Amino acid sequence: MKEEFEEVEYEPTSVKDLLVEMKDTSELIVDLAYAAIMFDSDELGEEVRHLESRMDFLRYQMRMIALMASRTKEDSERLAGILQVASAAETISNAAGDIVDLLEKRIEARPFLPFVLQEAEEKIRILRMGEDSSMRGRSIADLKVESETGMRIIAIRRGRHWTYDPPGDTVLTGDDLLVVRGTEDGYRRLTGYTAGEEAWPG
Amino acid sequence: MKEEFEEVEYEPTSVKDLLVEMKDTSELIVDLAYAAIMFDSDELGEEVRHLESRMDFLRYQMRMIALMASRTKEDSERLAGILQVASAAETISNAAGDIVDLLEKRIEARPFLPFVLQEAEEKIRILRMGEDSSMRGRSIADLKVESETGMRIIAIRRGRHWTYDPPGDTVLTGDDLLVVRGTEDGYRRLTGYTAGEEAWPG
Repeated sequence: MKEEFEEVEYEPTSVKDLLVEMKDTSELIVDLAYAAIMFDSDELGEEVRHLESRMDFLRYQMRMIALMASRTKEDSERLAGILQVASAAETISNAAGDIVDLLEKRIEARPFLPFVLQEAEEKIRILRMGEDSSMRGRSIADLKVESETGMRIIAIRRGRHWTYDPPGDTVLTGDDLLVVRGTEDGYRRLTGYTAGEEAWPG
Repeated sequence: MKEEFEEVEYEPTSVKDLLVEMKDTSELIVDLAYAAIMFDSDELGEEVRHLESRMDFLRYQMRMIALMASRTKEDSERLAGILQVASAAETISNAAGDIVDLLEKRIEARPFLPFVLQEAEEKIRILRMGEDSSMRGRSIADLKVESETGMRIIAIRRGRHWTYDPPGDTVLTGDDLLVVRGTEDGYRRLTGYTAGEEAWPG
């Protein structure tokens, strides 16, 4: 027990950082879980598993820090509220894990799902960066992909490596596979740019 | 029991429609729950409660239809997979309910949360439509709000009435309060349009 306590150092900002990461993860993991089923993708399923483990770790850290930081009744009240959100975020990530459990079932057990989930207003689609795309060599933040097209890049696959929720300074390269989320209209526009049929507007 | 069975009519499309609504709701309700805490908004909290009840209803419907539709082993296998997703979606909506439970606590119990959740990369903000905005009198679909700005309108408040996940044919009017989600950059652009400082580009 003593060792575990020593590993965790209490900083006032850590609770905030942990909670922001847990909130972001709880939103992203739901998208990725549906995407994994929709694309029948073991790779996306594995990423959901990684995020689920990460969430366990974050919640443990959060509990440790909260217990150490709680000195007064007011502290305890505030921290109990934060732990309640953290707990909900973890529950959400566990539910996402339940969704991707379906990938372990026989394919016959889930042919209907890809079809079903594609019907939602916002769709998750996969795009490949073309050799002639004017987006190549520029970062997501520089391109302002989401503001320009309404499409959010929720994951990138480069070779065998997946990055989920790629940071803004990620520079797009040829052959990147982008998992994107947004409307049909945004998807059509983005396809024009990734295929190199149209020059990026900005 | 007999009456309940009679209420539900089995159509092949219903399972699909139910699952799509459950998926969409499970994504939206998480956004709304965080927004409710962030804005300390009882109205948004109530909407989360409505969605949570709606999800209970949808899951019940789904179970009924699945049980009635299951005739062969193959049917059962497919439908079990669908019920697993439906169950996860409901778990997510219950977790969202746990988040908004915090609104019933004393304000002292949650002063930290609004600050915390504002730190995420994608923010939820509130905007009011100005009298001079060129967006007025046009529908969300016509404007292509999300493609143009990257901002998703997750709820609209008109007078005392809230509409969450407003349909594309919703026509924006003066004094509408928009709850939007997206990047800082998208928010700045959209503010120019809602305030009437800039004319809508499309």
